[in-house]
Amino acid sequence: MKTELKEKNILIIGLGVVGGSYAIALKNAGYKHVFAVNRSRGAIEKAIAAGIIEDGSTRLEDFAARADIAVIAVYPTGAEDCARTLGAVMKRGALVTDVLGIKRYYSQKIAAHLPEYLDYVPAHPMAGREKRGLDYASGDVLKGANFIITPLERSSREGMKTIETLALDMGFGKVRTLSPEEHDKVIAYTSQLPHALAVALINSDEENSSTGDFIGDSFRDLTRIAQINADLWQELFIGNRENLLEAIDCFADQLKKIRSAVEKKDEESLRAMFEKSSARRFALIKNERK
Amino acid sequence: MKTELKEKNILIIGLGVVGGSYAIALKNAGYKHVFAVNRSRGAIEKAIAAGIIEDGSTRLEDFAARADIAVIAVYPTGAEDCARTLGAVMKRGALVTDVLGIKRYYSQKIAAHLPEYLDYVPAHPMAGREKRGLDYASGDVLKGANFIITPLERSSREGMKTIETLALDMGFGKVRTLSPEEHDKVIAYTSQLPHALAVALINSDEENSSTGDFIGDSFRDLTRIAQINADLWQELFIGNRENLLEAIDCFADQLKKIRSAVEKKDEESLRAMFEKSSARRFALIKNERK
Repeated sequence: MKTELKEKNILIIGLGVVGGSYAIALKNAGYKHVFAVNRSRGAIEKAIAAGIIEDGSTRLEDFAARADIAVIAVYPTGAEDCARTLGAVMKRGALVTDVLGIKRYYSQKIAAHLPEYLDYVPAHPMAGREKRGLDYASGDVLKGANFIITPLERSSREGMKTIETLALDMGFGKVRTLSPEEHDKVIAYTSQLPHALAVALINSDEENSSTGDFIGDSFRDLTRIAQINADLWQELFIGNRENLLEAIDCFADQLKKIRSAVEKKDEESLRAMFEKSSARRFALIKNERK
Repeated sequence: MKTELKEKNILIIGLGVVGGSYAIALKNAGYKHVFAVNRSRGAIEKAIAAGIIEDGSTRLEDFAARADIAVIAVYPTGAEDCARTLGAVMKRGALVTDVLGIKRYYSQKIAAHLPEYLDYVPAHPMAGREKRGLDYASGDVLKGANFIITPLERSSREGMKTIETLALDMGFGKVRTLSPEEHDKVIAYTSQLPHALAVALINSDEENSSTGDFIGDSFRDLTRIAQINADLWQELFIGNRENLLEAIDCFADQLKKIRSAVEKKDEESLRAMFEKSSARRFALIKNERK
């Protein structure tokens, strides 16, 4: 059954960092027939030359009919167009998955274009790079990262199992299942909010001059993700709007508590907040190691 | 002259992470006579047994008179007490320095207890650990870190040169000079604000339950420093109150801008903020490498 999976035609739509890394990781894992579709021809040719895909095209129609599994690895707002073509062309029993970082809204949009005879298992590989494009793809990007499957009612048990196998073969660490609604709530907090904070932090430096000479590890860590793919992340922020607004508000409340304690020179409250944060961070990391 | 420095009696007051790391790094650099004073006897005995100090005591009076250079490496609120004793006991021409993370207020307090015949060169080694105590000290803590000298009018040129030599010998990367006022402004932004954000971020997770299963690199990076030495950091926050409040307010304004753009689904504004943050982060890192 696993050998069989490696013989299947897998079509990756979008050779960016994530799509490209999928292609490399599948190739490394012994998958025989990986194809790709990409808006520009350049990445396709590079990928063929590098031996990470068997063939490819700039037109989805050229490969969609042959695919046993299609991976939508474009930006959120481009996903619906892909789904329209896949829905029209893919063969009965084929499996569609995606890599979108937000799920509720887009999974519904994608699903609407896929006939019942196609299986669809949405997923979120929690991996990426600040940089964009195939040049920044590699098997390492995915190594050990969390992989979240966010099934819809229509997602088959077999399809979910297949996507899990793919994920583990590609080197992801843990594979978990969450509802699309829970996923978007959690991800607003663990991914979009941190990005918002990093952007706000680096943009709030009014002088932006000599600061570079005086930064320590903490500032470096907190601003790493301020170097951000602007096109992708505005889609993720707006696409997860309600959850992100709520996460920002919860955060702002906590920051206000710190501000108020500093203003009042309230040592005890500060100490209590720091002790709480230390315990939570410790628990988080411990929990993660399990 | 450099060999001579290595023959001098150097007294470290406070064998915590920073004081302990100083002792180790000085020893490794070939300094011959390093002594330490610490509140508890345990750390002194460990340090002697480990061969990183020549001798030590729990009473500052026991070693202060012999010291050519004294390093105040206690928490900010304990510094004044040390200075009082040093001022009463140290010999003419001796040099006092410190490692406090905030400078304006405490440097004045320390200076007030030191007679004119003592040299005083305040400094901030930008290094540390989330954990406290000698067990977490090591030469690596300091390796390549930024070192800031924040001279007062009374600081002699020769004393500053000595502290710079010590810093470079211990393995610090760049040594820079800033006024205490500038230092505190910059550090509120590059150190205390990031810590406030990390604490607020991890404390704003209302559920604080399964989140650990779904975190990515960004959340890990942004919350690392939420594991914080509560006693030390409440002193740093309150001791740099005005600057920190200003930094929090600048940050909160930027976060409000992001929130408002998300709320209005304003793609263009989000994209512009992300492009600005990316350019700034890129410039920061580039600038730092110089």
